[in-house]
Amino acid sequence: MDILFTFKIKDEQIAQLRSDFPSIQFSFTKDIRETNIEKYEVIVTYGEDIDNAILERAKSLKWVMVASAGVDQMPLLEMADRGIVVTNVSGIHKTPMAESVLAHILSLCRGLLALYKQQERKDWNTRIRLKELRGSTALILGPGAIGSEIGRLLQAFGVKTIGCNRSGRQAEFIDEMIVFDALLERLPHADYVISVLPSTKETKGLWTEEHFKAMKETAVFMNFGRGDLVSEEIIVSALQENLIAHAVLDVFENEPLPESSLLWDLPNVTVSPHISSHSGKYIERSLEIFTYNLRKWIAGEKDMKNGIDAEKGY
Amino acid sequence: MDILFTFKIKDEQIAQLRSDFPSIQFSFTKDIRETNIEKYEVIVTYGEDIDNAILERAKSLKWVMVASAGVDQMPLLEMADRGIVVTNVSGIHKTPMAESVLAHILSLCRGLLALYKQQERKDWNTRIRLKELRGSTALILGPGAIGSEIGRLLQAFGVKTIGCNRSGRQAEFIDEMIVFDALLERLPHADYVISVLPSTKETKGLWTEEHFKAMKETAVFMNFGRGDLVSEEIIVSALQENLIAHAVLDVFENEPLPESSLLWDLPNVTVSPHISSHSGKYIERSLEIFTYNLRKWIAGEKDMKNGIDAEKGY
Repeated sequence: MDILFTFKIKDEQIAQLRSDFPSIQFSFTKDIRETNIEKYEVIVTYGEDIDNAILERAKSLKWVMVASAGVDQMPLLEMADRGIVVTNVSGIHKTPMAESVLAHILSLCRGLLALYKQQERKDWNTRIRLKELRGSTALILGPGAIGSEIGRLLQAFGVKTIGCNRSGRQAEFIDEMIVFDALLERLPHADYVISVLPSTKETKGLWTEEHFKAMKETAVFMNFGRGDLVSEEIIVSALQENLIAHAVLDVFENEPLPESSLLWDLPNVTVSPHISSHSGKYIERSLEIFTYNLRKWIAGEKDMKNGIDAEKGY
Repeated sequence: MDILFTFKIKDEQIAQLRSDFPSIQFSFTKDIRETNIEKYEVIVTYGEDIDNAILERAKSLKWVMVASAGVDQMPLLEMADRGIVVTNVSGIHKTPMAESVLAHILSLCRGLLALYKQQERKDWNTRIRLKELRGSTALILGPGAIGSEIGRLLQAFGVKTIGCNRSGRQAEFIDEMIVFDALLERLPHADYVISVLPSTKETKGLWTEEHFKAMKETAVFMNFGRGDLVSEEIIVSALQENLIAHAVLDVFENEPLPESSLLWDLPNVTVSPHISSHSGKYIERSLEIFTYNLRKWIAGEKDMKNGIDAEKGY
């Protein structure tokens, strides 16, 4: 069997794979278009390089392992038609992403930005306004693996967690579940609104001006899911009108965020360049999931980890 | 009975006290020297205005309620000789302080300072080095109410907690307890060293260059207890020599930190102006403890909350 990686891993990781799976041919490339794509049964990719043209040439392809959570850049339906299995690594993002979300929330409560700025001026100013996180309420849009991990940590800080998804099905570490239709009604109770929603046909543009208007003026909006949840224009005007206190954005309608974007300069927004899932342990953990699934694949077992439903898009 | 407050509380809080305790005379001043200090049985203070001269004049004084955790600015032994009861509010600091400590730790792991700086430059740079907190080890010096709360939150993030105090007696949310003498031996295992030690004769100057040398080069030192734990000179030279990766200091040998201090400019230190216990809920919570203790006082009960042992100093 031939397996192609379209991103770099360390030499010792390659050696480990070859020693664990001696009968498999592993190849590595930085440019998928320059390979004999026809022969590979499995492609391991970050997901951005699989398009219809590649798919057409990849005659032997049966499994695409995406070392990322988002699979929205891939022609999922065409792959489903061909019977190509898609798996991702969504579980491995939960730790770094939840830590980033908590870092931003606590930084806002405990005045870190103000503190860093006054240190630059050598200013011993004790009148920074600090808040406690304890006792507040967070509404988590899309409490899957990542959202539940955020919920778990928030609960440890004494935060009430409300989860919101399509089905309203109970999620772990969520005190109360609601469906999307109940959102406007519950938003006035939330101090933090945190989206970790994937990009699907239902979530695109789901968030509107109405939602910002329903939020507390003191509340914080955080998008750590996908940028197409809400248009940049709507976010900018909500922040300009102070409908909410602050936004922390790790994802944007257009990435990289253009220099011309008004978001860079607004005082009540934090721009994070889609890095919240980053961690020194990323590839190591991706490979753990990959090798687990590869053993299943070789054994012909169907219950692989993190299978993607092409229809749902996650 | 006459009770003097030497700090301001809100009008509605005064009204509440007077309605809860109609037989008691409450007085309020900003300057303790301008009052008929002789008549007050109880003084409620932040603790910085009680000295031997005041004590001599305060003939009726029987109880000093300090709305602060540190009582090191007061003549404790003289007060003990006079049989004056001292209570503080140490428990109420645990939430805001633990949240501040976690905010700083997570900010360092998740690159918030770098992120804030590049936002100012409109720089979409995804190559910030981010770490996970999960899996690291923290050593907490002085795991009392505050230290245990820090331990509880760190454990929720999957951090191993080592506590260190004089007795080695087990503390809550601490995986392993050690005594001060075992510190040098365990320091090489800690990624975060967090002091919340009070100022006592044993803790003054306890931390030396040897301790910094025993730490990992990648480790972070945090002092949220009292500034006299370690001299500024020792901290500065440890940071200049990169014996450790970073220090987060909320307390200093000299406060306010003089403009001439080298700490302001070092790239690997965060200067916080002794604000980590601040919270919008501070006075509200202090008054809760005060009224609880006042009822005990009126009833002649001895088991008041947060009694201070003058010998120990905490």
